[in-house]
Order: sequence, then C-alpha cells, then structure tokens
Amino acid sequence: MKGKILDSLTIEGDSKIILLVIDGLGGLEMDGRGTELEAAHIPNLDDLARESSCGLIEPVGKGITPGSGPSHLALFGYDPVENNIGRGVLSALGVGFKLTERDVAARANFATVDREGIILDRRAGRIPTDENIRLCKKILNRLRLPEGIEVFLEPEKEHRAVLVLRGDYLFGDISDTDPQRTGVKPLDPLPLNRESEKTAQIVRSVVDQIKEILKDEDPANMMLFRGFAKYRPLPSFMERFKLKALAIANYPMYQGVARLVGMDVHPPQRDMAAQFQVLKERFSDYDFIYLHIKETDSSGEDGDFDRKVRVLEDVDRFIPEVVSLGPDVLVVTGDHSTPARLKSHSWHPVPFLIRSPYARKDRVRGFTELECAGGILGTFPAVDVMALILANAKRLTKFGA
Amino acid sequence: MKGKILDSLTIEGDSKIILLVIDGLGGLEMDGRGTELEAAHIPNLDDLARESSCGLIEPVGKGITPGSGPSHLALFGYDPVENNIGRGVLSALGVGFKLTERDVAARANFATVDREGIILDRRAGRIPTDENIRLCKKILNRLRLPEGIEVFLEPEKEHRAVLVLRGDYLFGDISDTDPQRTGVKPLDPLPLNRESEKTAQIVRSVVDQIKEILKDEDPANMMLFRGFAKYRPLPSFMERFKLKALAIANYPMYQGVARLVGMDVHPPQRDMAAQFQVLKERFSDYDFIYLHIKETDSSGEDGDFDRKVRVLEDVDRFIPEVVSLGPDVLVVTGDHSTPARLKSHSWHPVPFLIRSPYARKDRVRGFTELECAGGILGTFPAVDVMALILANAKRLTKFGA
Repeated sequence: MKGKILDSLTIEGDSKIILLVIDGLGGLEMDGRGTELEAAHIPNLDDLARESSCGLIEPVGKGITPGSGPSHLALFGYDPVENNIGRGVLSALGVGFKLTERDVAARANFATVDREGIILDRRAGRIPTDENIRLCKKILNRLRLPEGIEVFLEPEKEHRAVLVLRGDYLFGDISDTDPQRTGVKPLDPLPLNRESEKTAQIVRSVVDQIKEILKDEDPANMMLFRGFAKYRPLPSFMERFKLKALAIANYPMYQGVARLVGMDVHPPQRDMAAQFQVLKERFSDYDFIYLHIKETDSSGEDGDFDRKVRVLEDVDRFIPEVVSLGPDVLVVTGDHSTPARLKSHSWHPVPFLIRSPYARKDRVRGFTELECAGGILGTFPAVDVMALILANAKRLTKFGA
Repeated sequence: MKGKILDSLTIEGDSKIILLVIDGLGGLEMDGRGTELEAAHIPNLDDLARESSCGLIEPVGKGITPGSGPSHLALFGYDPVENNIGRGVLSALGVGFKLTERDVAARANFATVDREGIILDRRAGRIPTDENIRLCKKILNRLRLPEGIEVFLEPEKEHRAVLVLRGDYLFGDISDTDPQRTGVKPLDPLPLNRESEKTAQIVRSVVDQIKEILKDEDPANMMLFRGFAKYRPLPSFMERFKLKALAIANYPMYQGVARLVGMDVHPPQRDMAAQFQVLKERFSDYDFIYLHIKETDSSGEDGDFDRKVRVLEDVDRFIPEVVSLGPDVLVVTGDHSTPARLKSHSWHPVPFLIRSPYARKDRVRGFTELECAGGILGTFPAVDVMALILANAKRLTKFGA
C-alpha cells in the first residue's frame, strides 16, 4: 500500500543519486576492541556522517536476520516479505540468464557421493570451471524431459551451476535436495503445496537421471539442488521511481537482484578500485548508481575482524572521490550486519547516512553503530530508504491537498 | 486495523485535552542560523519541552511530503492513506457547506482568458468578494443541468469558490480543468475511471455553459476547477474517541478537516491573540480543543525565515496562558514541516511534545527538531498521536485480559 503511494508520487528530475552498499556493514564488539567500524580508521566516512542525517536501518524487521536477496530488495524499495524471491531465481538472474514467467530455477552444486550415495563433499572438491562446463553439457545432452518442458543448466564458477525448468504450470515450492551437510544422502525433492506436485515429479526425474549420467565421473558424481523458485517479474526501478539505474557489483547474486528490478548491470571488475573507477566513468549517464562492496561481508563471515576493519579502511579511502563527483544524494549503508564475532549475517540494524542539501544535520560524530543510533533518523525500516532518497533528490510530489 | 482496536478501547472521562497545531512547524538550517525553531527565542516552549515527553512525528511516511488534509487527518487519528480526502470536499466543508453522500465537490477559481481562451490570470485579478457573489448567482440562475442533478456554487473570498454537484451515481475521479499555469487553455475534465464518466460529462457541460455565461464579464470571464472529489463521511471524533471537540482555526481548509471528523468549528478570529482568547473562553465546554496556527506555514511557504521565527516567538508568548488553563493533556506539534529554505511543505518529521502527569520526562532541553529527535518518544507516525493523547488522558481501557 505504502509502496503504491510512493510510486504514485515519483516525478522526473535531473538529480543524481549514489547508493554505496557496504555488505555486512554492521558489527559487534569483539575482544575489547569495539565493533569493526569503531576499530577502523575511517576519517572520510566519519566526516561524511557529520555532514549527513544518520540512523540505523532494519532490513526486514526487529530480530530478523536477512539473506542478501531480501535485504537488497528492501534497500531498493521493494517490500522484502511481499517479494520473497527464491535463491534460484536470484542465481539465474545473476549469471545473466533471461528468465521467463514459465520458469522455475534452482541453485545447483556438483558434489561427491560414495557408493551408497552418502555425500562426501558438497562441492566435489571445487572442480575447475572447465570441468563444470563439460559436465553441464554432458547432462543436457542426455536428459530426457516430458513433452513441453525445457531444461537449462548454466555453469557458474567451480562447482556451482543454475538449473532452470521451463514449461506451462510449473511452480517452485519444492524442498531442497541439498541437505547442507555431509555424511547423509541427498534429500528427495518434495512439493510444498498442491500446485508444485507436477514440478516436483519432474525435478525428481531430473535428479535421478543426473545421478545416472554422472555415475562414472570423479569427483563430481552427483548434483545437489536448493532454492527452487518460480520467477515472478517485479515492476522495474524505472517504472516505479523514474530512475535510470546502474549496478556496479562484482558478484552474481547482487547483479541478480539488480537485474530483477531492471537496473543496468556493469560487468564485474577485478577489485574495489576498479568499481569506483566505473562509478566515476558512468556517473553522468545515470540517475542512480548502486555500488556494492562485497569483502566486508565475506571477512565478517570468515570471522576475520582485522580483515573486515581493513576493508572498511579501504572503502574509506575512496569516499573523497565519491563526494567529489557531486551527487545530489549520497547514501552509505549496508544491506545487513555481518559481525565477525558471529561469523554470519545478523539481525542487528545497520548504520545509515544520507547526505543532501535537504538532509537535516544531527549530532553524530562518526560512522559507527552507536553514533548512528543517536542520529536524527532513528532506527527505521530499510524499505523506506528509497522514499527518503527520492525526497532528498526532489523526485517526489506532494501527497494529497 | 490498529484504528479499530483503538476505537474499541475508548472510554468516557472528564479529562481535558488541548492540541496546539503550529502549521509547518519543522524547518531546516538556513544561512548558518540553524532551523527556524533553533533561531527563535521561545523560552516557554523550551520549558514545556523539558516537562514533556518529546519526539518527532511523521505525517504520512518516511520521505512523503503531505498536503494539509492528510497531515491533519493523521493528527486526528485517521489513517491519511486510507482516508485520502479530495481538496474539493475539504473546501466545501471549509465554507460550512453541508455535504451529503450524493455530492461531488471541486475547488473553483474565477480566471481571465483572452479571445482564444488562453488563460491570462488564474485569479482574475483577485476580484472583490462581492463581485464573486454576484457572478456565482448569475451562473446559478442560468445553468441548465440534467434531470435529477443539482448544482451549488458557493463563493469564498476574492476569486475562490466551491462547486458541488448533487445526484445519484456521481463520482469524483475527474481530472482538473485548472492547468495551474497561464499561457495555456483550460484542460478538459476527463474521467479517471469508468464510474466517473457520467459525472465528467456533466462537468464538461457545466464548464461550457459557464464560459458562455461569463463571456462578457471582465476580468472574471472564465472559471477553473480542481480537486474533484466525492464526499464519503468519516466516523466522527465523538463516535470514535468519545470526545466533544472544538476547532479554533481561521482558515477554511482546517475548519473543513475539523468538520469532516465532526468537530464543532468556532468562527474564524482576526488573529492569534483572539484564537487563544477563544480557547480560554471555551475550555470548560469541551473535552478536546484543537487550535490551529497558520502563519508559521505561510511564512515558511514564502521563504521568509525571519517571519517564521517571529510567528514562533508570538506563539511562545501565549504558552503560559495555555498551561495555566490546566489541561490534563497538552500537545504541541505541527501537521508537517515547511522549511523556509524549501518554500514548501516537506517530508521532514515534525517536533512533538506531550505534557501530562503520565508522560515520561526525557532529556530534551528545548523545542527543536534535533532535541525532539533525541526525545523519549523517538520518531513515530502522526496517526498514533491520538492513541497517545487518549492514553495520557486516561481515556483508554486495557486491551485483552
């Protein structure tokens, strides 16, 4: 409802917006050193915070730890609960696969099983990508499917691939075959509702055939599936917000979410410096540029406090360049928290700053969790970020008389 | 849903409530002087803030700039999105016109057009009110309408009037004929949905006839219409909250919203002092008195920082009188922000204070945007204000066992 109101108020403009998403930004105190943001020497982000309205954002809701899909959708102004996109769909979009409304997608992993079918390695020793490509071709050549059903198997890096089934009346509410651990057999793909029964049968047949096709391969003699989901297109960023948008993200997942909302997606870059270089080069061509930094999240997931601190300091060095581009609205935030101490995503609200001539300054003196908690924006839902951005970009008209 | 729960909990009482609405209260830093509230010398409001629970309210939602209609409805406890009232209805109620459920209303302006029908002046040189009255009569005498349709044309001040069409199956989703600028012709009244087609036809006939009737007049030789809306009565303040309520507001628009929710409306006063005098005189007769100060908003709209500061200081001088009446609950807030720097309504949350024996005091030391942001109430939706008022007035019973 609120999304609909927002959409009805958007107007065209020539203001420029930059959304810098530092993945897994928020942290927790660890070993008496404060949080990662507190431990990091980030003078430029601190300065920026002093010139901005600050707050904390909640990706999905109090206490809810989000995946990257929902947390990014929220940042992009799409209710993450109403638009719960399956991992499979995000992966397919991430590899640039053109999904249709007749498609069900799933993540696929090559794996190693023993003679009894017990999983020994969920990643088949991270086989080389070439081997992955060869095996996908082999499978596609031999798979037999019911009349009217098409299948696609798109190799990604190493052991990863994406499965897409295309046909009429396919549905994606099907349980994972990947048990997410070793020492057990793959699970059966079960329909989670009536309408997905037919699709689950097809998946079961696909799984059985793949097992047969791969049986003499080594080490990739099995395939595991998870995140089955039917593709349902979303209204695009351009339709909703009248923004021509570019995503500068290095990882397929984030490129996938960006494609899902209709952003242009720049090819992946080798490192952060190259990403910021792209930002500079493409800044004048777009109304809205989303730049995604991954390494804060991966170092957090690895429990590597020091590395996360270093990545934050690396990001900090690029902030003056970003500011010097002169965006009308600059937002720096994260999609969720990934405290090194937890080695995983967490539910903790995420530091947020918005800099524009119309953002009220507050008393925040640095870019940390605690400082932002005292910011003038308070703690608010991430799904409201786009409304705040559009308002500050003067791209919203008045509601009601 | 939340509104329904609230209504089910209201109980009678003899507590007294004052809601002081300082229109366009919130501001923005300007010329290094801080915000209007920061620049103003308002010792009484500052004292009040120290004795109160403070916070910031959001009229409609993060980033949304509201019109006065929705922002007042929210303050009065009516969801501003579910109850999006058209400008025409508010204007009709504002002039005291008794609308029925068969009515569609619109704002009307006398205007000047040239021989080709191009608009030269959207206000017909702000014709005297007497001339307005004469022209409205002339039009009504000559207008011919389809069987079963009645028409009313209520003069307001200068060039302004209200059009009301009454009949069965009339609907108000019709586009404006007022293009809101000069140098172009008036627009055609177009139906915005199927059910409004018949009404749009009638409006078109009315517009054509008025053009003919006024053709020899000077300067008011045309009429422009905007804000068509069907009247849908709301459950009254009395029904919902068991409060006998009075509005002390000088402008038709605010009187209109007050009438819409069934408040008594005091006749307009010549100035702020007279309004506070009425408050004193009628205080014992009502459970709830809403007093509306307009000049903060108009000075903000004019971009006149200094005048807005002066009006705030004027209001401040009446605060001790208000306090001395001894209301059980006193709320001071605004309907929305109107920063002088923006010369318009804005989306920024609005300072809010509630003083009652049961409102927790916080660390707020003055009545400013930034101080209120650090208040114990945080930032919250304006539609929740009435629940907070009723609770502090001991006019709500417990929810559930």
